[in-house]
Amino acid sequence: MKIASFKAAGRACYGIVTDAGIVDAGRRLTSFPTLRALLAGGALGELRKLATERPDYALNDVELLPTIPDPDKIFCIGVNYATHLAESGHPTPPHPMIFTRFANSQVGSGQPMIRPLESERFDYEGEMAIVIGKAGRRIAPEAALDHVAGYACYNDGSIRDWQRHTSQFAPGKNFVGTGGFGPWMVTTDEIEDISKETLITRLNGVEVQRAPISDLVFDVPALIAYCSTFATLVPGDVIVTGTTGGVGAYRNPPLWMKGGDVVEVEISNIGILRNPVIDEKPAAASRAA
Amino acid sequence: MKIASFKAAGRACYGIVTDAGIVDAGRRLTSFPTLRALLAGGALGELRKLATERPDYALNDVELLPTIPDPDKIFCIGVNYATHLAESGHPTPPHPMIFTRFANSQVGSGQPMIRPLESERFDYEGEMAIVIGKAGRRIAPEAALDHVAGYACYNDGSIRDWQRHTSQFAPGKNFVGTGGFGPWMVTTDEIEDISKETLITRLNGVEVQRAPISDLVFDVPALIAYCSTFATLVPGDVIVTGTTGGVGAYRNPPLWMKGGDVVEVEISNIGILRNPVIDEKPAAASRAA
Repeated sequence: MKIASFKAAGRACYGIVTDAGIVDAGRRLTSFPTLRALLAGGALGELRKLATERPDYALNDVELLPTIPDPDKIFCIGVNYATHLAESGHPTPPHPMIFTRFANSQVGSGQPMIRPLESERFDYEGEMAIVIGKAGRRIAPEAALDHVAGYACYNDGSIRDWQRHTSQFAPGKNFVGTGGFGPWMVTTDEIEDISKETLITRLNGVEVQRAPISDLVFDVPALIAYCSTFATLVPGDVIVTGTTGGVGAYRNPPLWMKGGDVVEVEISNIGILRNPVIDEKPAAASRAA
Repeated sequence: MKIASFKAAGRACYGIVTDAGIVDAGRRLTSFPTLRALLAGGALGELRKLATERPDYALNDVELLPTIPDPDKIFCIGVNYATHLAESGHPTPPHPMIFTRFANSQVGSGQPMIRPLESERFDYEGEMAIVIGKAGRRIAPEAALDHVAGYACYNDGSIRDWQRHTSQFAPGKNFVGTGGFGPWMVTTDEIEDISKETLITRLNGVEVQRAPISDLVFDVPALIAYCSTFATLVPGDVIVTGTTGGVGAYRNPPLWMKGGDVVEVEISNIGILRNPVIDEKPAAASRAA
C-alpha cells in the first residue's frame, strides 16, 4: 500500500495512492486526521479496507506534502555509505552519526526545494527514509523491523557552507524548503527486503548517485536499535538513512542545485521523489520587523 | 509574570505562578489549551488579566512540567561562554554552534533527571533558555528582542560518552529525561536586561558553575538572528543559549551526576530549576519486544 499526505481543495489530508487515483482516507477515518495519527492509532488495517474504494482525486490534481508533515522526530544519518565515506574523507564511524531536522524544513514531491539567498552551495543527498509505525525504547535489532511502517524517498538537501559553519551540521540541514520527503511511503508488506532495493538520484535527468540499499554501513535494524537507545521512538518518527557517493560538493568542479533544476530521488519498488529547484527571491526574504 | 506548565489532578495545563499559588489558565482560556498555543495566539495580554484571580493550587501541590512541553523546535548552542571554550579546548567558533533536542528529552523542575543504564558520564550544563513569542524569519538583531516572550532556566544534561560517539552531539543530548526546563518562564517585561542576570549551577548544594549572562559569546539578538536565518521561528520555540565553565567532564577527576544527587540551575530574577537525579533501573530498561 502506498500512502501519501497531500493537500486537495485547500485541505491537508492523506490517503491511499492507487493506479486509478487517490482515495482520501482523512475524511473517511475522522478519528485519524493525519497519517501520523493513523500510525499512532495502529490503524493501518482500517486504512487498508479503503483500498478498493473509488478514488477521490487524480494524482495530478493534488499537491503532495511531505509523507509525514509533522513527525515528532527526524533523525538523519551522516556518512552511512562506503562511497560517501571515501569521497568525504571521513573514517568509518564506530557508531551511527546522528543529526536532526526540524519538520518545517520539509517539502513534498512536486513542491519546490528552495536555494536560499544566503548560499549557492545547495547540494542533493538522495536517501531512503524509514517511517516508524510502532513505539519503542531500546529496540533489539532482531525486533526492529516490527517497528517499521514503511519506507519512502528523501532528499536531505544541504547548504554546504552553513553545514560547515561549526562542527555541528544543523544549520546547513535545516533551511526552510530543503528536505524533500515522498512521494509516498510504501508499507513493509510490499517491500520484501529493503536492502535489495536500489537508490538513484538524478539532477536534470542525469544520474548522479546510485547504490544498492545493501551498501548501508549501519542497516535498518542497527539504526533503529541505536536511535531507540537514547530516544523513545513513536509512530511517525522518521529515520533518514544517509546518502551514497556522488554528492555535488565533492565533484570537481562542484555541482550545485540552482533555480530551474529538477532533482529526483528514486528507490525501486517505492517511487520517484521529484522536486523543482527555485532560487529564493530577495523580496520574500526581507527581514522581519 | 511567571508562567509555568504543570500537571494537577491528572491534567496537563499551565498558569500564572504568584506568591500565593498558581492560577490555572488552561481551564479559563479554553481556546488556548497549552502555553505554546497561548503564545501562538498572541494572548499573553489575556493571560495577564487572570493574574489577580484567586490561585487554584499551592505550588507544592502541582507537578511542574517542562515550561514548554511541546516546542516545535529546540535549538541548543554549544561553547558559548569563554570559560567553557577554554576548558573544552575549542577555538571561539565564527558562528553559533547549533545542535538540537527533541521535546521528549525534557523534564520539568522537580521531575527526576535520569542517568541511563548505558553510561556513568551524566553531566550538568546550566543554561539560560529563550522562549520565542512571535514568529519570524531572518529577524534583524535590532528587532530580535521583540520576538522573545520570556526566559527560563535549562539544564542541558549530557551523556558525554554518547555525545562523543561521532562528531555530531545529538545522541548524548537526547537521552530521555536529561533536559531540565523551568521552573517557569519570566516574561520580558520583568527582565529589564537579561545580560545583567547571573547564572549559577549547584550540585548537592555546592556551586559548580557561575557566570553573568553578559559573558555569552553570541548574545540573545545574535542567536535569534542566526537561527532565524535558516529556520522560521514560531511561538514556543526554545533557544538554549549554552553553558559556562565548570562542567563535570573537564574536572580532574571528572564530576558526574548520579542517583541521589540534586542539581539546581538558578538565574537571578527568574528562579531555581531543581531536579533530583535518579539512576535508571534495569527492569524499566528491558528491551522492547
